[in-house]
Amino acid sequence: MEQHERPKIVIVGAGFGGLDAARTLAKHPLDVLIIDRHNFHTFTPLLYQVATCALDPSEIAYPVRTIFRGKDNVRFLLGELEAIDYQTQQVAVKTNGRMHQEPYDYLIVAAGSITSFFGMDKLEKVAFGLKSLSEGVVLRNHILKLFERAAWTDDPQQRDAMMTIVVVGGGPTGLETAGALYELYNYVLDREYPRLKHINTHVILVEATDRILAPYPEHLQKAARRQLESLGVEVILGNPLADAASDHIRLKDGRIIPTYTLVWAAGVKASPVAGMLDVPLSRAGRIPVKPTLAVIGRERIYAVGDIAYLEDRAGQPYPMVIQVAKQQAKLAAKNILRQLRGESQESFEYYDLGIMATIGRSRAVAWIFNRVPLSGFIAWVAWLGLHLVWLLGFRNRLNVLVNWFWNYLTYDRSVRIILEHRPHEPDLEEELLAEAQATTSSNLPG
Amino acid sequence: MEQHERPKIVIVGAGFGGLDAARTLAKHPLDVLIIDRHNFHTFTPLLYQVATCALDPSEIAYPVRTIFRGKDNVRFLLGELEAIDYQTQQVAVKTNGRMHQEPYDYLIVAAGSITSFFGMDKLEKVAFGLKSLSEGVVLRNHILKLFERAAWTDDPQQRDAMMTIVVVGGGPTGLETAGALYELYNYVLDREYPRLKHINTHVILVEATDRILAPYPEHLQKAARRQLESLGVEVILGNPLADAASDHIRLKDGRIIPTYTLVWAAGVKASPVAGMLDVPLSRAGRIPVKPTLAVIGRERIYAVGDIAYLEDRAGQPYPMVIQVAKQQAKLAAKNILRQLRGESQESFEYYDLGIMATIGRSRAVAWIFNRVPLSGFIAWVAWLGLHLVWLLGFRNRLNVLVNWFWNYLTYDRSVRIILEHRPHEPDLEEELLAEAQATTSSNLPG
Repeated sequence: MEQHERPKIVIVGAGFGGLDAARTLAKHPLDVLIIDRHNFHTFTPLLYQVATCALDPSEIAYPVRTIFRGKDNVRFLLGELEAIDYQTQQVAVKTNGRMHQEPYDYLIVAAGSITSFFGMDKLEKVAFGLKSLSEGVVLRNHILKLFERAAWTDDPQQRDAMMTIVVVGGGPTGLETAGALYELYNYVLDREYPRLKHINTHVILVEATDRILAPYPEHLQKAARRQLESLGVEVILGNPLADAASDHIRLKDGRIIPTYTLVWAAGVKASPVAGMLDVPLSRAGRIPVKPTLAVIGRERIYAVGDIAYLEDRAGQPYPMVIQVAKQQAKLAAKNILRQLRGESQESFEYYDLGIMATIGRSRAVAWIFNRVPLSGFIAWVAWLGLHLVWLLGFRNRLNVLVNWFWNYLTYDRSVRIILEHRPHEPDLEEELLAEAQATTSSNLPG
Repeated sequence: MEQHERPKIVIVGAGFGGLDAARTLAKHPLDVLIIDRHNFHTFTPLLYQVATCALDPSEIAYPVRTIFRGKDNVRFLLGELEAIDYQTQQVAVKTNGRMHQEPYDYLIVAAGSITSFFGMDKLEKVAFGLKSLSEGVVLRNHILKLFERAAWTDDPQQRDAMMTIVVVGGGPTGLETAGALYELYNYVLDREYPRLKHINTHVILVEATDRILAPYPEHLQKAARRQLESLGVEVILGNPLADAASDHIRLKDGRIIPTYTLVWAAGVKASPVAGMLDVPLSRAGRIPVKPTLAVIGRERIYAVGDIAYLEDRAGQPYPMVIQVAKQQAKLAAKNILRQLRGESQESFEYYDLGIMATIGRSRAVAWIFNRVPLSGFIAWVAWLGLHLVWLLGFRNRLNVLVNWFWNYLTYDRSVRIILEHRPHEPDLEEELLAEAQATTSSNLPG
């Protein structure tokens, strides 16, 4: 086929890294294939707003095909990566219940990270993660169901447990979730659950170490804690989770907190895709890469973002944040282009824009360029503006933005529907899959 | 408890009938309880737009508690009605896995209708219904998954089958769904599935009788058919479905249509709640009511809307449409108020506003007051205007309306995310339920 004359680049993952790599490569005469298990990109910084009923799932999800509309050299394959064969330069993808083999000239692994429970199996069963859109919806449904249960529960202790949420993890996700949950409770309960109006709702943030927002300067850490507490969130530091069950958690100092909702925002690890490269992995299961972002020992494979392990000049691993993923993805794409042209590759230099975290309406902290500290309302305005512009870049539709801005400002938590559904007739799907297996296909343009 | 002094009215169902009954009763010193298995009201006239990726589920779903915000005499119970004991005047509701008993002085049954497959079990397994929000999302996910499969399928016959949709039923739902699906196919495929661009997509409307839109005058039926066909939909009349499997359907005349998507909009029957009244049921399992809307033989129980059977002066049963449900609900509520005051009850008089059906963008037919026929663009504008105003009444938020209007006009089918999720840890939910059972509660304000 004539298409084989153009170099084939396969990108695993349609997160921030995968998309930026594809955008960079799409401008060149290459065949780009994006593989993801979802047909959409998730705007993860706002996931917690889906979980807390402020935004609709589709407001932070955008179909990958729409993003690359009109780019005829970018294809998309919906499926789960099963294997990477670096010797024959192929990936195996499970799609529609069958295996699809896809050859590559260069591979970019941008599969991101997943929730890490640090080996605590029990936690995995009990806790709610917040790394994917499905997890956001599952948490939303759970909280809304608890509201309905609490409204018809007589036992004051059980009702209190239903109205208590424990968020574990003092990073930005933990803070944002705790703040937004507190506001959800107060906004919704006061107006629509007359019986719960005067009940004490508890949102508790548990952080194992003695400080929240570890990478921030100390005065911003303190400011963040003050803002959380002024909102009404209880902050517990230096007292890690020791045990968890469906109806309570226990902290290391023995304190037992009755709750049905444990949100786990305390740790992530590299996606299991990292294990498919057959190289020794670094901390948190990340793939060690050279400064060019090529995987050590795998010349034609690059890894970027959360899944990649690279240290800065001070010997610190680059953090698992979106900006690192985006910048690494662009460099990996450029280094592939350089290789194709026979030029020498460049090393990764992180341009740190700084960090920010929001803590509910009109509360936030920011550490711009790691130099300018902002706190309170001005930090929140900066957070809001940045995310508005950023989201606009993805959605490119002003009306969604207006809608979001409106929801966010008015705090009208209208996305409070408990919508659960199962796939249509699993048997039937299986049948369809079996039939699809009869079809053998490979290397088709999507 | 002092609350027992106020008459207790229980309403089963938060559809158009249930809501209008509750709105009417809420103005009086009564205790109103609404029971529904969902925590939201569904704006069913636009369900097909969720299935065809034009609207988000939450744009046509509104939480029941939000609708009755500030009405302290209206409570809400999320649960499934299990039994009606007309002798002791109680209903049993399954909620949180336990049974809850609730007494009533008057009961309004407004549980609506469900899809009827007329006893064809096989159909039930294969076909997609379109009566609930979950069904809308399930159909959307199915269609989007087929798009992705088709894009990677080599076999032209199988690909054609994946791009063929059969809609059974020539009523408004069938027409609306067929038209919107055709537009979805053409809009999305052309822009985002280069490989499918030149494939013939088929949307086929199958109606067992020899005409679509049975209640309309003949020239409007023909106009609707012309408009459907001009859009590109194949219309098959007088040739009912004979058999269906996961990969094809067969019509009575022997024609076999390979397809993976059979949408069933050919019939409804009363909700199984009708069977709980222990009275002989009428056609389609509907509950026979007096002209006052009281259930025959059950003085304190009223039935309204799709679930109620009442004939007009010409001996024709009132149709299962929203306007009948709304008007009956208001009258039932008023008749209960009259009974409480010792006044005589009134009989139902239907004020027929007419009927309308839309067939894709800028195509529609309407039969205003059953006198003024409209067709084409002007009928579509009338349809659009009416639904905008109506939806506004529910949502009461201009921004959602603007968003919807924009989506609808630009046809930017952006709600194209395949989002499937299972409830969090079934075991855990069970545990929680078991614990909740320990709590005994009744007659609590919600």
